Formats: sequence, C-alpha cells, structure tokens
Amino acid sequence: MMSYKEMTKEELQEIRKEVAAKYDELKAKGLKLDMSRGKPNTEQLDISMGMIDTLTDYNLVGEQGVDCRNYGVLDGIIEAKRLLSAMIECPVDNIIIYGNSSLNVMYDTVARSMTHGVMGSTPWAKLDKVKFLCPVPGYDRHFAITEFFGIEMINIPMTEDGPDMDMVEDLVSKDEAIKGIWCVPKYSNPMGITYSDETVRRFANLKPAAEDFRIYWDNAYCIHHLYEDHQDHILEILEECEKAGNPDMVFKFCSTSKVTFPGSGIAAISASKANLDFIKKQMSVQTIGHDKLNQLRHARFFGDFNGMLEHMKKHADIIRPKFEAVLEMLDKELGDLGIAKWTKPNGGYFIGFDTMDGCAKKVVAMCKEAGVVMTPAGATYPYGKDPHDSNIRIAPTFPSTEELKQACEIFVTCVKLVSLDKILETK
Amino acid sequence: MMSYKEMTKEELQEIRKEVAAKYDELKAKGLKLDMSRGKPNTEQLDISMGMIDTLTDYNLVGEQGVDCRNYGVLDGIIEAKRLLSAMIECPVDNIIIYGNSSLNVMYDTVARSMTHGVMGSTPWAKLDKVKFLCPVPGYDRHFAITEFFGIEMINIPMTEDGPDMDMVEDLVSKDEAIKGIWCVPKYSNPMGITYSDETVRRFANLKPAAEDFRIYWDNAYCIHHLYEDHQDHILEILEECEKAGNPDMVFKFCSTSKVTFPGSGIAAISASKANLDFIKKQMSVQTIGHDKLNQLRHARFFGDFNGMLEHMKKHADIIRPKFEAVLEMLDKELGDLGIAKWTKPNGGYFIGFDTMDGCAKKVVAMCKEAGVVMTPAGATYPYGKDPHDSNIRIAPTFPSTEELKQACEIFVTCVKLVSLDKILETK
Repeated sequence: MMSYKEMTKEELQEIRKEVAAKYDELKAKGLKLDMSRGKPNTEQLDISMGMIDTLTDYNLVGEQGVDCRNYGVLDGIIEAKRLLSAMIECPVDNIIIYGNSSLNVMYDTVARSMTHGVMGSTPWAKLDKVKFLCPVPGYDRHFAITEFFGIEMINIPMTEDGPDMDMVEDLVSKDEAIKGIWCVPKYSNPMGITYSDETVRRFANLKPAAEDFRIYWDNAYCIHHLYEDHQDHILEILEECEKAGNPDMVFKFCSTSKVTFPGSGIAAISASKANLDFIKKQMSVQTIGHDKLNQLRHARFFGDFNGMLEHMKKHADIIRPKFEAVLEMLDKELGDLGIAKWTKPNGGYFIGFDTMDGCAKKVVAMCKEAGVVMTPAGATYPYGKDPHDSNIRIAPTFPSTEELKQACEIFVTCVKLVSLDKILETK
Repeated sequence: MMSYKEMTKEELQEIRKEVAAKYDELKAKGLKLDMSRGKPNTEQLDISMGMIDTLTDYNLVGEQGVDCRNYGVLDGIIEAKRLLSAMIECPVDNIIIYGNSSLNVMYDTVARSMTHGVMGSTPWAKLDKVKFLCPVPGYDRHFAITEFFGIEMINIPMTEDGPDMDMVEDLVSKDEAIKGIWCVPKYSNPMGITYSDETVRRFANLKPAAEDFRIYWDNAYCIHHLYEDHQDHILEILEECEKAGNPDMVFKFCSTSKVTFPGSGIAAISASKANLDFIKKQMSVQTIGHDKLNQLRHARFFGDFNGMLEHMKKHADIIRPKFEAVLEMLDKELGDLGIAKWTKPNGGYFIGFDTMDGCAKKVVAMCKEAGVVMTPAGATYPYGKDPHDSNIRIAPTFPSTEELKQACEIFVTCVKLVSLDKILETK
C-alpha cells in the first residue's frame, strides 16, 4: 500500500470510489455493533463466578474478630486493606477501603475539597477560581467530575512518557488556582500509555504554588496487563513523593471493577496518613461503613495478591485476542496509508486512535450510520472539545472477536473515506 | 413506692444510703456492658443468612435482561425498585436505589445542595446562612451532617404527635434561610414516636419561604414493628405533598440495614420525578451505578414485599423480649418515683428516657464508671447540647437479655442516685 498523501488526485478519486462502494455495501448489512464501551465481556465475568459461592461456609467473621454482617469498621477490614494495598502498592496503613466505585471515591474527594478544602485549606467553593490540569486525551468521567464542580480544565498534551512535564511543572508552580491534575499513570485511558520513571519523579518533585494541590492518580489498570512477557511498570508515586519531601501531594485510587464484577467490586484510596486522617473525619459523617461482606468476599476469593495476579492472567487470555484482532486489522488496512496513528498498549482497556486533524467527528458519525457505535469524538477531551478533532477511543473488550472484526472493517472504511475527502479538499 | 419528691429530707437521705451501697456493690462486679448501640444482635443477623446463598444458582440476569455482574443501570434494577418502593410506600417510578447506606444518601443530598442547590436553586455554599430545623431529641448522625456543612440547627421540641408543628409552620414560612427539617416519622430515634396524621398533613401543607426547602423524611423504621397487634401507621407524605400542591417538597430515605445486614444492605431515596431527575444528573457524574448483585440478592431473598414483612416478624420476635425486659425493669424500679419518664414504643430501635433536668450527663457518667456504656448524654441534640440535660437514648437490641437486665439494674441505680442528689440539693 502507498500513502494517500503521495497519490495524485486521480488516483485518490479512483480509490475513493472503491472505498465508498465498500462503505455502502457494509452499511447495507444493517449491523448493530459497539466499540464504545470499556466494559468486560461475559466470558471475563464468568471467571469471577466463584465470588458468588465464596462466603457459603457461613464464616463471616474477619481475621480481627469483626462480624462482617454488622455495623462497624469505617475504613475497611484488614483482609481487604491487605489485598488492595498490594494491588495499589502502598503500606497497609495508607489505605481506606470504600464501596463499589473508585469513580465515586474521586467524586467524593473533589466534592469534599469544594466544601471543606484539603487538609485545612480554604474550601474551593469559596475561591474565585479553581483549575485542574487534564492530560489529553484522557478519561471523560474524570473531566465530567471537574466540569460538574465548575473547575476550569487546562489541556496538557500527552507524550509517549506521560503528560508534558515541562508544561505541568511550569503551570503548577505559577498558578495557585491549580489544585489538581487527573492522571491514569498506567495503560492510560484512552492511549494505553504508561508514565516513565522520569515522569513519575518529576511529578513527585513538583513545587506547586497551591498548598492544597494534589495529584489525582487513578491507577485503574495497575494489574491489567495483556501480556506476561511485556508488562509495563511504574514507580510508586506515594514513596517518590515522600522522598521528594512532598508526602501529602498525591491521592491514589483503584478498584476491582475490572478484576471481579464491575459495579460489585471494592474501591480504595491511598494517601499519606495526614490526608487519610482528614478524609476519615468527613467519612465518619458520611457513612457508618462500607459493605464488609463484599470486602470479605474479595479477600476470600483471591486468598492473597498472588491469587489476584493469577486471576488477571485469565482476563488477559480472554481480551488479548480482541486487542490483537483490532490491531491486525488496523495494521493491514491503514498501516501504510499515512492517514492515522494508533497505540499498541501492553495493558488496559483501550486503543488510542488518531485520525488526520478534523476527521474524528466525521468518522464516528459515519460509523454510526453504518451501525457501529464508537465513543463520541471529543469525549476524551475536557468539555468534549478535541482541538484537533482527531482522537477516537477504541474499546475492544466487550464485543466478540467476530463482531470486532466486522466493526473494524466498517471503522477503517470510514477512516479511509473521511481521510480521502480531507486530502482531496486540498488537491 | 412513693414519689421521691413527696419524701422528707431524712427519708431521702436514708434511701440515698441504700442506693449508694447498691451502686458500689454493682460497680464492684466489674461488668462491661453496652446499651448505646442501635445495632442488630447476632441472632437477628442469623435470620438473614439465606442472603449468602441466594445467588448460588448463578442466574445473575435480572428480569429486564440486565447482567447484574456488569456496568450499567444507574438508578437500580426493577426488582430492587419494586421491593424498596413497597417498603417506603411510593410508586416504583419515584425511587432511586443506592449503595449500602441511607446515611450516605442523606449526606450526598445535603452535599449536593451545598455545591449545586436543589432543583436549580442557588448553591447553599454561596448563601450567607443556611438553617435546618431539628426535632429534638433526634438522631445524632443527622445533626452531624448538618453541623459538618456549617448549617445552623434550630431545635424543635417533639410532642407525642411529632414535632411541634406550630413552631415548624411559623419558622418555615418566615425564614428563607431554613432549607430543611430532619424527620424520623415512625418509631423515631430516640423516642419511638410516630407522627400523627394531622402532623403529616401539616407537613405536606407547609408554605416555606425558601423554594428549596425540603422535608428530609428518614423512614428508617418504616417496617420495624415490635408487635403484630400494635403497629403504628403514618400517612404517605409524598402523596400528601402532592395533594397539597407541594409535590417537590419531600425527600424520603430508607434502607435495609436493619432488615438484612447492616453495612451490606441497600438504600434508596424517593421523591417527585422533578427531584429525581435533578439528582440523577449529579449521580451520573458520581458513579456508573451501585451494586446490582446486592440488589438482586435482596430481591431474590425476599421474593416480594410480603416476604420482607414475614422476615420482619422474626426480627420482632427476637428484639421484643429485650424491649420488654428494659421496660419491665424501668417500670418496677422507677415507676412511681417521679424522677423519670420514658417511652414504650411499638417499634424501632430505641427507648427514649428523660431524667429530671440536669441529671442525664451525671447518670451516663456514673453508668460508665460502673461498666455500662450508654449513648452520651446530649447526643440526641444538635451540637451535643441538651438544654435540659435530661435525655438518654436506650438501645436494647444488641446485648443479650441477661446483659440487658444487668445493665438496666446499674442504669436505674444511677438514675436514682443522681436524682436523689438533685432533689436533696433543694431540700
């Protein structure tokens, strides 16, 4: 295949006819496919079915003598703390176990800062302006939280090593209104990028103007590898922050949503003791405690962290072929055309795809017309505004491999067609 | 027995000697007892053990085809909505199912009002002053929420029919800063009072100065009867509000914490469609959804609302003897002395006890010295300040009946001793 950009107008017009015919043919099939949802498939859910039976020996008393059926234990039973602190890589004393959703923990963290500040700082609701840095493309639900609270979001471009740290350092040190940055440090959503050691160290060594600046470190895919032999690793940020003299600068989040059952998992926050003490003051007003039976269920199901890692291999075996099917199709159909770029992540839930500037919305719209739902173009940017209109998030986990191949065929056809039109505009 | 107040100084001094000797004797036993905790006992938890097995047929697809293991369904599966709407008495369309804690739902409701107002009103954080009416004695965790958000709390005395409605009507109609009132309308915490029909109707017909005034109707004990033949009933407030032309004026809360497992139950809010639509906007930012497996577990365990009512009879059979043991002891030991009053509730979790003015703190302190933990005096009032220093909450459910009898013996002895000293002061 030859790059479109090297072709003559006539060659391009010829190809456009073929591609348009292909599109019409595919559209005529009237398919209903979906590559938008970052959710586990049924086969993945099935490997956790042992969770349903885990407590049927009726022994519901935890190691520390807690009857997990009754009230009590605000911050989580020791078994759950041990499991999730291993997962999120922190001392067992530096974690609070929450309910079923890390998103909810992040929401609560921002909400609390609005009304009560951070470790004694002025409540953000009393400030004229609060800003967050948002590495882009990023996770739409992060941006939805900050938008909901009227927090101004500033785009930070992602590099292959993580966010543009020159820009982060510069902005954070100058502007006291900047109170946080959203990070998915490992197998990022949607690009699958893992932050380099240097990036993590530069984060830990930030010199923020705001005392209540925090790094919102959403380690959603910390153990979500696709390969046994190609796994990404990140430096542990809590420890790096401590080394750098910034022990209170980070909140780490994780959950088992994509380990066991989404919606029926357990979530956690990890931070310095000073941060956790402040959080617990609020938490003790908010709730008597989270679902300890579900905490016990998780701890007993996995036995220990090794059990969890073994479990993750089963997930990898199920979703790896799906990622590979998509990547193969992209390589084969778009590899040399010079009209798109995409990532080949070692883990996580997404493939990040970039069209030529100004093409993403049209591609997604054409896909929809032909029966393929993609994540809306722009969703990976604050306010839904991708300044290049180029980023599209591909979510390969939920559909069957067969469906994925059909969906990809339509997707690449749309990419070709929209790109051809774009190139022809200037010829 | 004769009323203390009718006795001479000498008679009282004689009795005081006897009571003090009794106290020393009881104290010497070195008991460790607790009548402070409104939590179910082990036997109560045991009747819900079927919950542990409920899903072991591995059929985890809900009626409407939802795979309850995966993401999705923000406001609860239909099975859970049907069950809890029957429990809280509302149409199935007027409910949202939450996570494990109605306290958390109430917290979220106030927190959202702080940052985003109520159905479009000015966020309370932007107002100079926000006030809540607090029927007293009441539930300390309600007051903790409003105190946490800096909301000024105004005491409203409770009568046998519910809050003093003359005062409520007057204050609410005059003061735009009053945004809510905390209510436990049935078997109230701690007095076990149930609001009369007239009280409910007067609530529904309030003419609040603030458009964002809401009644926070925590129907925590809606089906928590102690007797089959003496059950309290309340008018359904949502419907009454609608009739009165105030359809949006109430938020109802409930949970299964004291039906199945505290901490592993499901909670709900019920309100008008306009209120729920506003809430869902926030909720969709806060979470992807709550634990649907636990919703399914509850629905399947009970089958239907009748199953839940049958289940509640088992709870009643377990805790009724405990209430009766306490009441018998109070009657026998304090019945005619004229130094205390207490309630005989038909349901709920508490017996409300009033000492003579200025005695509650001393009684609780003396109990503690003799090994009996009571809810701290004052806890049933905003800011922990009981203006009469008279109210003590007795929680009979958790200890064994034998422990309760021992604890009560100490309690009544302390009440006598403190009262005697009080009366002797003025003789």
